[in-house]
Amino acid sequence: MSDSRNFRGTTDYWGPGAATRSSMVGIISTTFRSFGFEMLETPVIENEETLSGKYGPEGDMKRFRLVMKHKQAAGLRYDHTVPLARFMAMHWNKFPLPYRRFAIGPVFRNESPSAARLRQFTQCDFDTVGTRSPIVDAEIVAMNYEVLNKLGFSGAYTVMINDRRLLNAMVLHLGVADTGDGLAILRAWDKLEKVSLQQAFEQLVEELVIQHTAGVFPSPSDDQIQRLKRSTRSRLETTFLSATEKLLDMKEAPSSRLVDEMMAKFQDQKVHQALEDILTLLQYIDSMGVPSNCYQFNPLMARGLDYYTGPIFETYVKVGGVGSITGGGRFDNLIQQMGGPNMPASGSSFGLERLQEVMRQLGIGIKSTSRPDVLVAIFDISNTTLVQQTFSVASDLRLTGLKVEVYTGDTRGLGKQFQVANSKKIPFVVVVGPDELRNNEVTLKDMGTGHQVSVARRSLVEYLTAALQTTE
Amino acid sequence: MSDSRNFRGTTDYWGPGAATRSSMVGIISTTFRSFGFEMLETPVIENEETLSGKYGPEGDMKRFRLVMKHKQAAGLRYDHTVPLARFMAMHWNKFPLPYRRFAIGPVFRNESPSAARLRQFTQCDFDTVGTRSPIVDAEIVAMNYEVLNKLGFSGAYTVMINDRRLLNAMVLHLGVADTGDGLAILRAWDKLEKVSLQQAFEQLVEELVIQHTAGVFPSPSDDQIQRLKRSTRSRLETTFLSATEKLLDMKEAPSSRLVDEMMAKFQDQKVHQALEDILTLLQYIDSMGVPSNCYQFNPLMARGLDYYTGPIFETYVKVGGVGSITGGGRFDNLIQQMGGPNMPASGSSFGLERLQEVMRQLGIGIKSTSRPDVLVAIFDISNTTLVQQTFSVASDLRLTGLKVEVYTGDTRGLGKQFQVANSKKIPFVVVVGPDELRNNEVTLKDMGTGHQVSVARRSLVEYLTAALQTTE
Repeated sequence: MSDSRNFRGTTDYWGPGAATRSSMVGIISTTFRSFGFEMLETPVIENEETLSGKYGPEGDMKRFRLVMKHKQAAGLRYDHTVPLARFMAMHWNKFPLPYRRFAIGPVFRNESPSAARLRQFTQCDFDTVGTRSPIVDAEIVAMNYEVLNKLGFSGAYTVMINDRRLLNAMVLHLGVADTGDGLAILRAWDKLEKVSLQQAFEQLVEELVIQHTAGVFPSPSDDQIQRLKRSTRSRLETTFLSATEKLLDMKEAPSSRLVDEMMAKFQDQKVHQALEDILTLLQYIDSMGVPSNCYQFNPLMARGLDYYTGPIFETYVKVGGVGSITGGGRFDNLIQQMGGPNMPASGSSFGLERLQEVMRQLGIGIKSTSRPDVLVAIFDISNTTLVQQTFSVASDLRLTGLKVEVYTGDTRGLGKQFQVANSKKIPFVVVVGPDELRNNEVTLKDMGTGHQVSVARRSLVEYLTAALQTTE
Repeated sequence: MSDSRNFRGTTDYWGPGAATRSSMVGIISTTFRSFGFEMLETPVIENEETLSGKYGPEGDMKRFRLVMKHKQAAGLRYDHTVPLARFMAMHWNKFPLPYRRFAIGPVFRNESPSAARLRQFTQCDFDTVGTRSPIVDAEIVAMNYEVLNKLGFSGAYTVMINDRRLLNAMVLHLGVADTGDGLAILRAWDKLEKVSLQQAFEQLVEELVIQHTAGVFPSPSDDQIQRLKRSTRSRLETTFLSATEKLLDMKEAPSSRLVDEMMAKFQDQKVHQALEDILTLLQYIDSMGVPSNCYQFNPLMARGLDYYTGPIFETYVKVGGVGSITGGGRFDNLIQQMGGPNMPASGSSFGLERLQEVMRQLGIGIKSTSRPDVLVAIFDISNTTLVQQTFSVASDLRLTGLKVEVYTGDTRGLGKQFQVANSKKIPFVVVVGPDELRNNEVTLKDMGTGHQVSVARRSLVEYLTAALQTTE
């Protein structure tokens, strides 16, 4: 009958689901504020020149663009980080640094509509701009822990920690000078949560061979390809493969012992420098009281290959293939890239829908309800005095912060009104009839027990508040 | 230096401005909830078929469309009402009626970028679906009053009330059978807040002459036009002009007396029926405790000419040309029009930015701050024990709900850290140095007075909470 539908890849949230989301956003923003972050609202629409080229080729493909005259090309924001950088480039001299902001709102990706991926989802970001202090990076882990703790997670996740400087140093140490080769190695490492080392190795060989022939032999013979494959493979066996095997061997060690082992196994000054920084970071995280089973240094985690320059973070959950529920890191060059000053920055983001999905799978409930606390019935709509008193009772109850729905259905009769209360799961109904009015009372019906009592009008608020506490 | 900028017609909100918006949204949504409304989140993107043809020609021109393959044409939502109707058409049988929902979020209009009008702004809507009860319509006025009251308005606005059924009956009474003529008259009435009756009359004559010649004389002579103008003018003098003069005469009367006077002056059964309904509505509004100086029956207010079918509302503020800050009414046909069942609905919307602007002009302040309550200084970043204790103090303070920023600037020295606290208007700084650590104390500096005290570590929370209360 109805041909109306959502835009594919978007969702409506209502009822207890919407109430839960709202509670989650409340918990998340309160935690952000408790660490001294303030709200920044940037618009959903950004100029094309702000967005273009910031997210790599995939991002440029998946961005939503608006139909506009060319000179004002614009599109929908893809994340909150690029808008933050644009904002800082415009306003960096208008407030004291470090500037700490959070942003909670929808971002947009034009995913293939066949996939289960959402095309609009909510990111909850916090970022500190204007300081290179590793305290800020450590706080990312502490805040990830704090938020997840308050949402009801007890374990079941790991905040994975790595550093782009370590990854760069490791790639150099492997003797891969070429940037493209280096990025391919990082991508191969990042895949190891999902595929075997052997698979990752074969894919890497293939990728590098294609990459190299593209530039050198415009149309290579099978023979040429085979020869290149053999040499690439033998080169990678002594570099990538042996290093990765060492890393995988150590991976389950506690974070700071893993740093020590890497120090011992990779004798390289740059690698050691980067590892020293990681050690400092790990010490701060520990000092902030984050339990050691909640985070893990993971030298194979590479994360998005775009704008990160220092420590990187990802919270990984091992249920239902959701993967990461937070991601972030240091991005010291992005603001300058947007036309702003040379200004360091570091932050992280929670994916609200992914968090919801993991909480659903883990059975972590947030107690939130969208139902009113009480329904105020209409005894006789044609009796003006009665109606006035009924509205007045509703108004008194609201003053105490209760959620009060006055019955507004078309049909009359108390029976029907009790039914509505039941179907809406409203726990109490108040009735003001002529008898009640005469005695300065109301009738209060407990929909759970079916029990009815007369309560003096002036005691109603107190009585109902107490009754609600025992019901909940 | 920087070429980064906002998309024209959009704004960034930060600092106290963002904090105020956040407080306003909190007040508004709490009030909506206190009347039994629950949150509904619909997506920013809707299918083109949902949006097209719902907002009249202006709306179709000003809607933002996305670059997409034709078969999945989509655009940005223009309001929250059409998405609600789309949602109801999809889900009406999944929850008990009446369904009461609120929605707070951005809507988008492609206004001319030269104008000061925003192209993204925030609407706060509440609507009741599934009942024709006039209680629901009366609640719109009560909730407008309640929200404005809580935001700090004391008068300075009028909720204007009218009814499309009265407008329809009046147009019929004037003997204007043609729909186009009727709509032109409603538009002329709606203009009377801004132009004189004479101007409105002349514009109406012009409009009707153009409208009539268009159909009858493809290329009329000057003579024909003059003749038509004379006959239209004389017809409108005895109908539109005389009726409007009567209405303007009475307009300042108290609402219910105005109804009585209209009863006496317009002897028409349909007009009287509509006026009876308005009388009931006015009685309910009065019963709900809304002071009579906050609302006004205004038979000349016509509001958007699109989907309204019954009572209509607009909150008018007489400052700085902002005009209306709320608008709404009954729209009993829209859900069916979207492919849903025949289902009545009524609701209203606050424009957040307009509210902000009026509050700014009227000097109505909402006390909200984005600054942290306390800065925890770093005495010596190289002393691990000290750093650990410092973080631990910050964490203890956060547990009590305080907003606590740990100093994360690049430079060291307490003097610099006090400066940061000052520039960020943070009222207190806590220092944990080696002496403090030894004595199990902290030093607390009041940045307002410059006064420093030593406080036992275990008394800090209590001491600081009390100090913050006297400072604020």
